[in-house]
Amino acid sequence: MVINSDANYAREFLASCRTLIDSELDRLIPQASEQPQRVHEAIRWSVFAGGKRFRPALLLAVGETFDARADDLLRTACALEMIHTYSLIHDDLPSMDDDDLRRGRATCHVKFDEATAILAGDALQALAFQTIAEDEKLDAALRVQLISEVSRASGTPEGMVAGQELDLNAESREVNGDELERIHRLKTGALIRAAARCGALFAGANEDELAAITEYATNLGLLFQITDDLLDVTATAEDLGKTPGKDARASKATFPALFGIASTNERIKSAYRYSCEALKKINRSTELLAAMVEFVVNRDN
Amino acid sequence: MVINSDANYAREFLASCRTLIDSELDRLIPQASEQPQRVHEAIRWSVFAGGKRFRPALLLAVGETFDARADDLLRTACALEMIHTYSLIHDDLPSMDDDDLRRGRATCHVKFDEATAILAGDALQALAFQTIAEDEKLDAALRVQLISEVSRASGTPEGMVAGQELDLNAESREVNGDELERIHRLKTGALIRAAARCGALFAGANEDELAAITEYATNLGLLFQITDDLLDVTATAEDLGKTPGKDARASKATFPALFGIASTNERIKSAYRYSCEALKKINRSTELLAAMVEFVVNRDN
Repeated sequence: MVINSDANYAREFLASCRTLIDSELDRLIPQASEQPQRVHEAIRWSVFAGGKRFRPALLLAVGETFDARADDLLRTACALEMIHTYSLIHDDLPSMDDDDLRRGRATCHVKFDEATAILAGDALQALAFQTIAEDEKLDAALRVQLISEVSRASGTPEGMVAGQELDLNAESREVNGDELERIHRLKTGALIRAAARCGALFAGANEDELAAITEYATNLGLLFQITDDLLDVTATAEDLGKTPGKDARASKATFPALFGIASTNERIKSAYRYSCEALKKINRSTELLAAMVEFVVNRDN
Repeated sequence: MVINSDANYAREFLASCRTLIDSELDRLIPQASEQPQRVHEAIRWSVFAGGKRFRPALLLAVGETFDARADDLLRTACALEMIHTYSLIHDDLPSMDDDDLRRGRATCHVKFDEATAILAGDALQALAFQTIAEDEKLDAALRVQLISEVSRASGTPEGMVAGQELDLNAESREVNGDELERIHRLKTGALIRAAARCGALFAGANEDELAAITEYATNLGLLFQITDDLLDVTATAEDLGKTPGKDARASKATFPALFGIASTNERIKSAYRYSCEALKKINRSTELLAAMVEFVVNRDN
């Protein structure tokens, strides 16, 4: 791995974002005391499980790079975290990846029940789009652009759902490197890319800048998933907050399983390089975005 | 039941809407040949299962009443059907209502598998919001208003998800009449209400008109669910396209189970009356909307 002290800059940025995002999420999500309590408890159980808030932070980082007002970005950033959390809740279900542990605690269907977990995910998806649609600080034209980005990145054929479906299909057969990258690009990459693009849309970035951000985030998303695959092989349960080695036992399609650890590290280096090179095309100060790349390659969970 | 020949007028209107809606849905939903095929096949299996298209038709009927252009309404009408279909797919899952048969054929998780059914529902929800957000015929300001309506009606605490959660909770305990109406209002009513309100929003209905339409549709939604409860007791499997008597065996909270058939018919009459009375507050020709009420009380599936 490439070691760089910029990762600390990103860690500090992520920590400050997390405070902002968490308090805004708390305002946006129905209280656990509100009826029907069980589904609201389930939503809060999963949303406030101690996630890194990587996607919303990436949106805020890109927004800051292009001089957007942080205040304007916050709700869309929260919407992205709602979509991400809904996808985790559904992915963990017995008929999907069948995970009992997530971020160090019981998954939603284990803590509550399967029906409530499905409904909690469904409600979070609706709330994400509601949150953007009702963000009165923003022009309506921007809001529909953001909803278009996020919905495409969430669904099929271009988004997360398509990736999860391909990933499930891949458990029963051999996939090649191209297919694996495609799964990763859809399952994890699409929402990370959307986060970055939303940040740029907020600030009215021009077409070249949007293309550069897209290239940056496409590679960052791939980097994120490959390092995730690698952590599943190398990390401890304590660092990871979930059972390591689970991908291999489930015959999940991953980079280490397909190519071995050495080749996986090579692919990490190339995604790292492409991501940083894309930033050179942006005529702004991009230290923060570069630091996000360092964070991803140097993280331990 | 009240018998009225206007029901035929509504049936003809529903049939013509169905043609329009089905061909637009076919354009909006990824083809089954497109990757990942399995999830697209599953989406199409459920969307094109021969539904009545009641919600989109209601939107078109309200739009027509207020002189909106039918062309402008079509995509939002399809979005409502996507949300409705996703909710049916998820409600039928083993951990929810555990239904094998829907509209006369295998439910999505039976025909495909549970994971694909969950993903098909998730993708349909995303596509619904994408469809409205990207409807370039409409002002962006109207699009965000429509997305706000539909997302609130879909989620919690004001929408479908809240209703389904309360309904599941009600299986294990006694509910009273007020609680039952609340479940119905959320689970089925919210989306029917949203359909009608969207139709009025399209045409720039004034506040009084919107209030009257809301009152009309709130009662129509209740009527729809109570007649549904009653059909579960009285109809044949062939008419219903699903196994009748299932609600009673599952100890579902329904009007006939709670009050008996005679009192249920009384409640149908009052919802019918309130719905028709609300129409008198609208200074337009409301025959079509009145016919929709007749259709609901006179339907046999």
